[in-house]
Amino acid sequence: MDLIKSIRDSIRAIPDYPKPGITFRDISPLLQSKDAFKSTIEAFAQRYQELGIDQIAAVEARGFIFGAALAQRLGCGLTLLRKPGKLPGPVVKETYALEYGEDALEIQECAFKEPQRVLLMDDLLATGGTVAAAAKLLSRTQAELLEAAFVITLDDLPGEQKLQDLGISCYTLCRF
Amino acid sequence: MDLIKSIRDSIRAIPDYPKPGITFRDISPLLQSKDAFKSTIEAFAQRYQELGIDQIAAVEARGFIFGAALAQRLGCGLTLLRKPGKLPGPVVKETYALEYGEDALEIQECAFKEPQRVLLMDDLLATGGTVAAAAKLLSRTQAELLEAAFVITLDDLPGEQKLQDLGISCYTLCRF
Repeated sequence: MDLIKSIRDSIRAIPDYPKPGITFRDISPLLQSKDAFKSTIEAFAQRYQELGIDQIAAVEARGFIFGAALAQRLGCGLTLLRKPGKLPGPVVKETYALEYGEDALEIQECAFKEPQRVLLMDDLLATGGTVAAAAKLLSRTQAELLEAAFVITLDDLPGEQKLQDLGISCYTLCRF
Repeated sequence: MDLIKSIRDSIRAIPDYPKPGITFRDISPLLQSKDAFKSTIEAFAQRYQELGIDQIAAVEARGFIFGAALAQRLGCGLTLLRKPGKLPGPVVKETYALEYGEDALEIQECAFKEPQRVLLMDDLLATGGTVAAAAKLLSRTQAELLEAAFVITLDDLPGEQKLQDLGISCYTLCRF
């Protein structure tokens, strides 16, 4: 797929960031290229436009970018999964472990008033900790999680296996 | 404008949040309504589609939502203005005052390799501190800032006046 190759080529490798031995995948050139950004959303739209998705659940902060653009393209709604303390009103919260310490995601209690077909989106799948927490959060609501979608999956980390073990279907555009 | 009224009506007022006497404007119902979200982006598109915008500069985190969806709609690029430590590689940084303490925004040094016509986007204009910092950041790059666009402007706060005093053109869909 030449389209996917051009998307992948627009992602910049930054060696030794944030620490030695790690190669960071920078999506900034993808976003700044109108062609690469449009192709990225179009590739997702091809997969999801016939699936009757009601809401895209997007993970703060880079998940907002692809989630919002795809929701606009598909004509569906966007639901935010945010860092603690960002969403007003009663929330449901899910804590997850990081390499050092922990973090959490929240969703508004009133997010889904009825059963909804939901696509979960983030920019990158690495260890899968964030996405597993997001899926757990959604399972405590009226969301029916159809799939988790990513621009990038890091193949040397166990995220995809972890999500598959949890019964979560994954889709990614680019692998590194 | 009935369209704007329906967008405005989809924004939820949360009294006494985050503290007594403050009414928080919650955009979650707007985003979750496919009609309201689509109308919001369409209203911006009507204004900006003939202006030859190269890049939308979006302020973390809620600015990413509207910036990404509008960039997708207009077929232009998206440039991220992020909180400190989030963008890889050399950055330009602008610090600004908060009610207590300070915060900062960063843009990648390599963001604009040539002169670009830029629209600045955030969800909400309140005191204008963040947007003034964002505009200052852009003025240190090759961006030509055309306008700053918001879904919401809080009319009892001096943000709009502050930006006008800095010579920054503002546009907002809804006023509270």
